[in-house]
Amino acid sequence: MSRPVVQFWYEFASTYSYPAAMRIEDLAERRGVELRWRPFLLGPIFAEAGWTTSPFNLLPVKGAYMWRDLERICASSGLPFTRPDPFPQNGLKAARIATALAPEQVPLFSRAVYLAEFGEGWRIDDEKMLATLITRAGANAEEILTLSAGNEAKARLRASVEEAKALGIFGAPSVTCADGELFWGNDRLEQAMDHALATHIPQ
Amino acid sequence: MSRPVVQFWYEFASTYSYPAAMRIEDLAERRGVELRWRPFLLGPIFAEAGWTTSPFNLLPVKGAYMWRDLERICASSGLPFTRPDPFPQNGLKAARIATALAPEQVPLFSRAVYLAEFGEGWRIDDEKMLATLITRAGANAEEILTLSAGNEAKARLRASVEEAKALGIFGAPSVTCADGELFWGNDRLEQAMDHALATHIPQ
Repeated sequence: MSRPVVQFWYEFASTYSYPAAMRIEDLAERRGVELRWRPFLLGPIFAEAGWTTSPFNLLPVKGAYMWRDLERICASSGLPFTRPDPFPQNGLKAARIATALAPEQVPLFSRAVYLAEFGEGWRIDDEKMLATLITRAGANAEEILTLSAGNEAKARLRASVEEAKALGIFGAPSVTCADGELFWGNDRLEQAMDHALATHIPQ
Repeated sequence: MSRPVVQFWYEFASTYSYPAAMRIEDLAERRGVELRWRPFLLGPIFAEAGWTTSPFNLLPVKGAYMWRDLERICASSGLPFTRPDPFPQNGLKAARIATALAPEQVPLFSRAVYLAEFGEGWRIDDEKMLATLITRAGANAEEILTLSAGNEAKARLRASVEEAKALGIFGAPSVTCADGELFWGNDRLEQAMDHALATHIPQ
């Protein structure tokens, strides 16, 4: 019998995507939901709103709260936390790599990027560091770096951004269900699974 | 033995303040936490960020999501929901009234305003409607309307806005604990109670 499928939309620079990426696979597995990892970019979506940086930088008092909130979430889930500098990090290369990897390598690579970035405070635009993380995900670093810089990976990532826009996505992490229902934020992962299960027609 | 005290900061125009206001008193009671209802205004805080309306209007795609999310929250908590027009409503008069009421009348009045606004879709800047809600809260409408238009109520509300700013508040609903810890959003009420209890020194 088929299982419901949800799409997990994440951006490598996004703070709340970190705890979400670290827990969503276990959650989906427990609930019997199939997960598609969908790396995308928020930059082009923010640009349409006239924003040139993270909204957390545009409203510093909100940014200060977000860092404290993230620190609390990490503490309560046993995740390491280090605030990366600069923020936001440039996640373009990591997103292209995630687009070029085989599906089963994507979660491993993505979690490794988040742990490096928000667990250890490392920069995630460095190719040497990214090569290490690709290797840890079980892929050939040289091959994937070449693929990720190619036109196909670029076009696929652009298509993902367009798809995210069409789905009404404006932030990360987001989860979308087969019927188009959108859930935004690490706080909504459980509800997204509930919705996917409640609306699923087994085939 | 003393109980921990939390401050519940809410703005009458704020959408997520509605479900929070409807459930926080029960929650605090169950957890043994003392609640102070703190009506305030987001307008002066948003103005400092250069915003002239709700951020949900400034980013329409985020606004569309918020309405759907609020509808889902109301459905799952058995709350009536009607989208008010215009949005945001002008909550200044209601906030001044809440400032002028006796402490025990504030929760009754505040919940009645939210139910009228987001449950029934009524305007909340109409004095006749507000007079009805004051009466339902057990107060003398004529007396409270006069008090709420006076300099003392205005000054107290302004002082609340300044206190909110000083606490780092940038949105509603928010809860602050005795040690200054800030929790933002209807999703964080439980954590705020947990924090207040964990850091409380009984006297």
